[in-house]
Amino acid sequence: MRTLRERKPLVHQITNYVVMNETANATLALGALPVMAHAREEVEEMVGLAGALVINIGTLSPHWVDAMLVAGKVANAVGVPVVLDPVGAGATKYRTDTARRILEQVNVTVLRGNQGEIATLVGVQAEVRGVESIGVGGAPAELARAAARNLRLVASVTGPVDHVSDGESVLAVANGHELLAAVSGTGCMSSAITACFLAVKGEGPLEAAAEALAAFGVAGEDAAREAKGPGSFHVGLYDALAALDPETLDSRVRIE
Amino acid sequence: MRTLRERKPLVHQITNYVVMNETANATLALGALPVMAHAREEVEEMVGLAGALVINIGTLSPHWVDAMLVAGKVANAVGVPVVLDPVGAGATKYRTDTARRILEQVNVTVLRGNQGEIATLVGVQAEVRGVESIGVGGAPAELARAAARNLRLVASVTGPVDHVSDGESVLAVANGHELLAAVSGTGCMSSAITACFLAVKGEGPLEAAAEALAAFGVAGEDAAREAKGPGSFHVGLYDALAALDPETLDSRVRIE
Amino acid sequence: MRTLRERKPLVHQITNYVVMNETANATLALGALPVMAHAREEVEEMVGLAGALVINIGTLSPHWVDAMLVAGKVANAVGVPVVLDPVGAGATKYRTDTARRILEQVNVTVLRGNQGEIATLVGVQAEVRGVESIGVGGAPAELARAAARNLRLVASVTGPVDHVSDGESVLAVANGHELLAAVSGTGCMSSAITACFLAVKGEGPLEAAAEALAAFGVAGEDAAREAKGPGSFHVGLYDALAALDPETLDSRVRIE
Repeated sequence: MRTLRERKPLVHQITNYVVMNETANATLALGALPVMAHAREEVEEMVGLAGALVINIGTLSPHWVDAMLVAGKVANAVGVPVVLDPVGAGATKYRTDTARRILEQVNVTVLRGNQGEIATLVGVQAEVRGVESIGVGGAPAELARAAARNLRLVASVTGPVDHVSDGESVLAVANGHELLAAVSGTGCMSSAITACFLAVKGEGPLEAAAEALAAFGVAGEDAAREAKGPGSFHVGLYDALAALDPETLDSRVRIE
Repeated sequence: MRTLRERKPLVHQITNYVVMNETANATLALGALPVMAHAREEVEEMVGLAGALVINIGTLSPHWVDAMLVAGKVANAVGVPVVLDPVGAGATKYRTDTARRILEQVNVTVLRGNQGEIATLVGVQAEVRGVESIGVGGAPAELARAAARNLRLVASVTGPVDHVSDGESVLAVANGHELLAAVSGTGCMSSAITACFLAVKGEGPLEAAAEALAAFGVAGEDAAREAKGPGSFHVGLYDALAALDPETLDSRVRIE
Repeated sequence: MRTLRERKPLVHQITNYVVMNETANATLALGALPVMAHAREEVEEMVGLAGALVINIGTLSPHWVDAMLVAGKVANAVGVPVVLDPVGAGATKYRTDTARRILEQVNVTVLRGNQGEIATLVGVQAEVRGVESIGVGGAPAELARAAARNLRLVASVTGPVDHVSDGESVLAVANGHELLAAVSGTGCMSSAITACFLAVKGEGPLEAAAEALAAFGVAGEDAAREAKGPGSFHVGLYDALAALDPETLDSRVRIE
């Protein structure tokens, strides 16, 4: 966190229309600099300037997919870490196929999704209703480990408790609040925040991904304290992200 | 409301860039699940999973119109109710023509718009400035009835008092607050909420459309109580939607 | 301000996905009517109805650039003032080239950007990280004057102190608050508000642009008073814009 606020890394986000403002503001509140750019004409140049890239497939169309693939390949070439958020994989064939295509063509550093999305991508039976995970067989810790092994990346599976794995270890992150599920785009925010932490090198992607979810979860706990519902919680979340204190954060993080 | 919160229907929204986050959050706060998907490649599959479809023409372009028509036809084929929000019909020929084209090719269940937009679509003289209704000749109750008859659907005409008609009855909904007009996208939210109510079968579209506007209006009344202006009202609106209590809602609804 | 609230001018905005809802709500809160429309099929007609046009290149793609050029030329032909917000010029070649292309083909009334963006467009060395201005050589007052002279328009360079110039005079606007830099889209909002003031004729674009920034800055000062962070500041900003009182505004404006 401290390094992040000092360096203010640029985080390039090719994300969906629904949450662009929200992930930009979460990135800013945390202390990094967001930039949204999706045109084939500029993604190569933009990702070269960035500390991390987010590819989020929440509102897809073919031109956007092309730009995601180009940006992802350039990120790989220049050593910029990539977070993939496979929003709605499992809900439609187009989303599942696109997520798989990105995973095949781009070396993704961290795959951040809900249980249904991640299960779909490792071939485990799952029910995804729209962009919500409804039911998945099996334990989420094993799902994270299997996804990490099969897809050779760090898998970050969010839910009531989050599970992050590199295929060997599994870190369980117990921070968070149920109101996070009542606001659209909090999953996408957690992907953006994961990218912010990856942009500040110094530790491996497993730790960075877990710490990002813990920090976001702590902010959620703080925001819930004075919230009257999902609207005021959403507003409080940005205040809480900006108020996160690196000094006291460690004592509140619940990672096992 | 009770059934809606139990079943959490999926509401597929092909809507405009300006309000996507807002209608997603209003849908979630009410208790349903929003999904935004607009690509030709996936709208057929997505609408087949949904309990209702919203088509909102607020920021149009040709690819989006194609997807709206495809999604609307599939919705008709599989029996999913369709809400059309003809944002800005009457302001430009492109918007008016597109709204008419959708009405010709898709069986719309509920047409939800302001007086100027609805008047334009039934050939009554109206002034629409951008996306605002400025002046319309004639009484809104008669406009709702005429629109319902001519277009063979339920017409839901919102304004200081809302009027919903199936061509025979006209229900007047007196809930609401003037601050709703000070926030961008509240009309679009009322269309999304109408779709949430339609997604829970059990009564006809006339009653569902009127109850949706009444519930949204009650939430607006609640949000206005502590609002200091349009910003805090907007935030309070999500809190109020989530706090709507099916037990006490009936006593507050003002439908005639 | 008084005239603006009486006349409620329509402000046509071709702007980026990230801030559409935000600039629409800022426009409404101030007292004008926003409309977002970007399709080639309707921009000519829409801009003809408007009191001012905003062209904002924050999330570019070729179809959008075509529409911006068409809308800008029609605005010129019918005498509608044009505000250009060259978001991220200097960060990628595509953004710099597009901003230059618009400046060549459209008579821009007011160019509103941060120091890095404006410096890039007048050929002064600058560092733009994503959409943030990091470092620029030279004084901002001289930059504003040089931009106004070279590009033959009113240059509105925002920063801790804003500088607005027509190539002769330079007005320095000292209103504002540092929390404005912690929320995504406040620069874009200041461009939209500039367009609102331009839409109400009666004074020259130099004065209108400076007064717009002063009014927005005063709203920022008011919003900061009760803010707990960027989230609550953002909400309070709309409340404060709506509460701006033309009677007392003059006494708070700090323009030199």
